Amino acid sequence: MVTKGKLLYEGKAKIIYETVEGKGYLVHFKDTITAGNGEKKAEVPKKGEINNQISSLIFSYLKDKGVENHYISQLSTREMLVEKVGIIPLEVVVRNVATGSICRRLGIKEKKVFSNPLVEYYYKNDSLGDPLICENHIELLELATKSQLEGIKAIALQVNALLTELFESIGIILVDFKLEFGIGEGNRIILADEISPDTCRLWDMESGASLDKDVFRKGQGDVLQGYTEVLNRLKGRS
Amino acid sequence: MVTKGKLLYEGKAKIIYETVEGKGYLVHFKDTITAGNGEKKAEVPKKGEINNQISSLIFSYLKDKGVENHYISQLSTREMLVEKVGIIPLEVVVRNVATGSICRRLGIKEKKVFSNPLVEYYYKNDSLGDPLICENHIELLELATKSQLEGIKAIALQVNALLTELFESIGIILVDFKLEFGIGEGNRIILADEISPDTCRLWDMESGASLDKDVFRKGQGDVLQGYTEVLNRLKGRS
Repeated sequence: MVTKGKLLYEGKAKIIYETVEGKGYLVHFKDTITAGNGEKKAEVPKKGEINNQISSLIFSYLKDKGVENHYISQLSTREMLVEKVGIIPLEVVVRNVATGSICRRLGIKEKKVFSNPLVEYYYKNDSLGDPLICENHIELLELATKSQLEGIKAIALQVNALLTELFESIGIILVDFKLEFGIGEGNRIILADEISPDTCRLWDMESGASLDKDVFRKGQGDVLQGYTEVLNRLKGRS
Repeated sequence: MVTKGKLLYEGKAKIIYETVEGKGYLVHFKDTITAGNGEKKAEVPKKGEINNQISSLIFSYLKDKGVENHYISQLSTREMLVEKVGIIPLEVVVRNVATGSICRRLGIKEKKVFSNPLVEYYYKNDSLGDPLICENHIELLELATKSQLEGIKAIALQVNALLTELFESIGIILVDFKLEFGIGEGNRIILADEISPDTCRLWDMESGASLDKDVFRKGQGDVLQGYTEVLNRLKGRS
């Protein structure tokens, strides 16, 4: 039995609640979709439900493969129970193929395939616009210790390898994605937040079509269609 | 005997020429001063002469202390003879005290003293606005190999220690500075470009006054006064 408690934190796409029983946090997935650090915003009915289901499937898959993460169980169509962790204010981005901001920022050609996955860190700070930071900035800002960061990077690369394989098996290229991590009991680094088409770039292998938030970013039509396709393929797999 | 040859490259503050004798490059220091990636621009008569002299003194000092660099000799008031190197398109910034862009970008308090010097890399690319890059971006863009970058970082920190001491001895705090490196004969990494109040932030220890380009950036009056003060103190030392 899990009962929704006090609201802890409301983000752009999720709300985190305490639970009355105190055994974990309740994550509520909203239908709000945003881009450009909140500059573009809309409501997409059902998006929260789909992302809750996709995240649940992916977190379960990762747990089966040995990647510890905060997911405990699905509570309802748009609610998930997770372990209590203190979120590290870092957005960890792994890129397999160049697209979006990195092309504009560094003049890299769109769709360039990286020979090694690129791991980037952004300082999760809305008022600063989530700026890119390097490892020594992370130490300087005391966001994570050197050894915590090594752990985070290793998990991010492991997740990339596992998810690349998972998505490949359902005809999807994992272009890039964003992870967040938390500190759990006993100071363990734990994969947290969500993994969904809000936080991943996913391209259909055959058509090259985006099945992710880029459809909204670029105003290319019904964003939910791609999300639903991803969910259906993930469900069809198991 | 050195005779100015073909113009090789004209930057914001310097022009590089071949020499007819072919023994090195001739660096001509311009009076042009710029800020904000060239958005703000002016002519400051004599600035080129002063920066040529300051750079010559600093490069000589560093050579005496064992830091290989491109400086060979002063040719005239605003001309310097340097070793031929291929410039690596990286701006290597070392910061001892927080000020300027890093405070705006990361929300760090102005004048915070870092417990360890912070080394940052910027991609020297005017059309991209010289963006911040991390070590893995440098590898990705093939600007330098991992071992070259280790060499560059070690030299940058050595230069920081030596220049901090040098400036301290003349009552100046070395706040931060930018270095550029080149590849010389035999693939050696060689400190290049210039080291002057155009590329360093220098604060008078007693008054806290800027003796550098910040006076121009912030429109705080006669920028040449600080540059002249730095040159006179350096000359008074030897």
